[in-house]
Amino acid sequence: MRCLPFLAVLALGVCRAQPPDDSLPATSNVMNAQYPRIHSDLRITFRVTAPGAQKVQVQPGGADSGLGKGPYDMVRDDKGVWSVTIPPAVPGFHYYWLLVDGFAANDPSSETWFGYGKPTSAVEVPEKGVDLYDAKDVPHGDVRVHWYRSKTTGLWRHAYVYTPPGYDTGRTRYPVLYLQHGAGEDETGWTRQGRANLILDNLIAAGKAIPMLVVMETGYAVKPGTVPVASTTGPVRNPNAFEQVIVDDLIPMIDATYRTLTDRSHRAMAGLSMGGQQTLQITSAHLDRFAWIGSFSAPIRNFDAKTSNNGVFADPPAFNKKVRLLWIGAGTAEEGMHQGAQTMHEALDKVGVKNVFFESQGTSHEWQTWRRDLHEFAPLLFR
Amino acid sequence: MRCLPFLAVLALGVCRAQPPDDSLPATSNVMNAQYPRIHSDLRITFRVTAPGAQKVQVQPGGADSGLGKGPYDMVRDDKGVWSVTIPPAVPGFHYYWLLVDGFAANDPSSETWFGYGKPTSAVEVPEKGVDLYDAKDVPHGDVRVHWYRSKTTGLWRHAYVYTPPGYDTGRTRYPVLYLQHGAGEDETGWTRQGRANLILDNLIAAGKAIPMLVVMETGYAVKPGTVPVASTTGPVRNPNAFEQVIVDDLIPMIDATYRTLTDRSHRAMAGLSMGGQQTLQITSAHLDRFAWIGSFSAPIRNFDAKTSNNGVFADPPAFNKKVRLLWIGAGTAEEGMHQGAQTMHEALDKVGVKNVFFESQGTSHEWQTWRRDLHEFAPLLFR
Repeated sequence: MRCLPFLAVLALGVCRAQPPDDSLPATSNVMNAQYPRIHSDLRITFRVTAPGAQKVQVQPGGADSGLGKGPYDMVRDDKGVWSVTIPPAVPGFHYYWLLVDGFAANDPSSETWFGYGKPTSAVEVPEKGVDLYDAKDVPHGDVRVHWYRSKTTGLWRHAYVYTPPGYDTGRTRYPVLYLQHGAGEDETGWTRQGRANLILDNLIAAGKAIPMLVVMETGYAVKPGTVPVASTTGPVRNPNAFEQVIVDDLIPMIDATYRTLTDRSHRAMAGLSMGGQQTLQITSAHLDRFAWIGSFSAPIRNFDAKTSNNGVFADPPAFNKKVRLLWIGAGTAEEGMHQGAQTMHEALDKVGVKNVFFESQGTSHEWQTWRRDLHEFAPLLFR
Repeated sequence: MRCLPFLAVLALGVCRAQPPDDSLPATSNVMNAQYPRIHSDLRITFRVTAPGAQKVQVQPGGADSGLGKGPYDMVRDDKGVWSVTIPPAVPGFHYYWLLVDGFAANDPSSETWFGYGKPTSAVEVPEKGVDLYDAKDVPHGDVRVHWYRSKTTGLWRHAYVYTPPGYDTGRTRYPVLYLQHGAGEDETGWTRQGRANLILDNLIAAGKAIPMLVVMETGYAVKPGTVPVASTTGPVRNPNAFEQVIVDDLIPMIDATYRTLTDRSHRAMAGLSMGGQQTLQITSAHLDRFAWIGSFSAPIRNFDAKTSNNGVFADPPAFNKKVRLLWIGAGTAEEGMHQGAQTMHEALDKVGVKNVFFESQGTSHEWQTWRRDLHEFAPLLFR
């Protein structure tokens, strides 16, 4: 096999010839890029042109990635094209990058998504028979980027707002789900990586979820004059500033700008990983604002039903009366997160705090877990 | 100067210590990244950590980039941190990438924008005293991502739709500007690189432009069963397919979905580079749909007022009666494009076809030229 010159677009540095097997280009590739390719058994072949490099590797993102641990050494041919085929991957969306002589570089064949605090390559591995996050022939909602000035930070921010099909033509008011990304990601994560808009489109079309707005914001904020916390995975922040942004700035702006139902029984918050932690923290402190709570793979350590989250679970009947849904989700392949979620679930069951424990079978600390969370969580909301 | 360990976030590969000069981090950097830094005289310092590399360079995007020609060799220190300061840059938005042992890699300190057919690093160089594309304390329109199925291609596409401030609360119908990106870019270009939404927000707030919708779509389309044209700078396409998408699919969808004024006198089309070429081609063939035309830095070769664009200029009085504005723009520093635009302008003047020739002083085939085009073009529309 060789790369035909007119197809081997030099500017892209990508060989675009077809390999003689059953593999297909990943849907996460930039338009027309032929690699990475997914084989029918979910092995993945990566390929990159780097004639001047001494060593090129594929590095999966995260310790418990669905791509295995890596790094995987690529093999150079006589033209300087490096390739490797890795063992079958877990279905889902997996961040990765190349190590070119040790330098962490994105794969020029891949789109980028904001993860690890910067634009990062990823590969979408299809799950057989699963179409819950595909674009189907159903009405689609819009995703709106809405700019607003935060009084808390003094800066412009933008919220991503999903409006369900029919929003523009009707007069209905809608409940709102505030949905947060994880550490190192941003407000684009839930639509770009998570496909939240398509999941909602499909659920609403099937009559499985009540039409709702979904508001997605950056989970970072710094108050003027404060010293932010350094982070290993993303932008600096001070956690209380985001709490203040969402309660004092974002919710009032959304309720003033969109046709929303503004009482607490029509407002939910959920988030993944850091966003799950923020959800538990913020909803616990503001049960006057939220009646529906979703923790997707939040890091939960040393959970104590009496004292955790400022003692919000200490009076189970009072909590049960106020909170219509407390969802605790985790993937069974997640290191640490699953154990923490299960411990919280069992401790709450024991003291009589109603909660739903959701286990995503075989998936790790990755978007496939959270797509499944959202797909099962959203239908329970606002009933 | 040294990188403090707790600030030198390993995952980002970026040194975050402050240098002792008057430089500031570029606003195009990923959050908190300290490099590239812009000096007050518009020199730019790039810095990257790559201890295993033998050679690292900064490569400006394009032959006549505002960053100069390059590539610029970076110098390694004893920790494997590579740096270079390049001569004063032209203000504006400039694509670039790193060459790490010859491998074209994005700068981990930079956000990425879709250019050159893939996500690409860029640096925003401020222009002193110019705030036409800044986020100001004015009402902001939303930018909506709207999914729709194209009958022409059989595939899902998404349009980016700017709705002006007040769209949601009023009942007014609005004129529409269809605004196209250049080769290698996509539907995100005009808002992310071009800041079209902020330019319109500012013009509308100042009473300088009539509130309008702006529709931005990917300028690539392939009809099933056709052989697309290979491209050196971006996705494959066949040009007539996009013409069919915009006329048969996009315009009817927009007019059915949003509160638009649907007659030709309330519909404009403009585009940059390849998008300018598409604009001239599509509007010429469909003057029953468009009354306002903007060509921003289109490649114009061998222009002939009698025969070019299927002879649409051959009957000047008829053209002048139909077309309310024909805008021909180019930067004075553009190789080729400026000459082509000037030739077209002079030839049209000579035969009496009304047109506006706009020269962006000192800027090249880059977004600063096109931001200025839009800023001067939009106020003339729909009057």
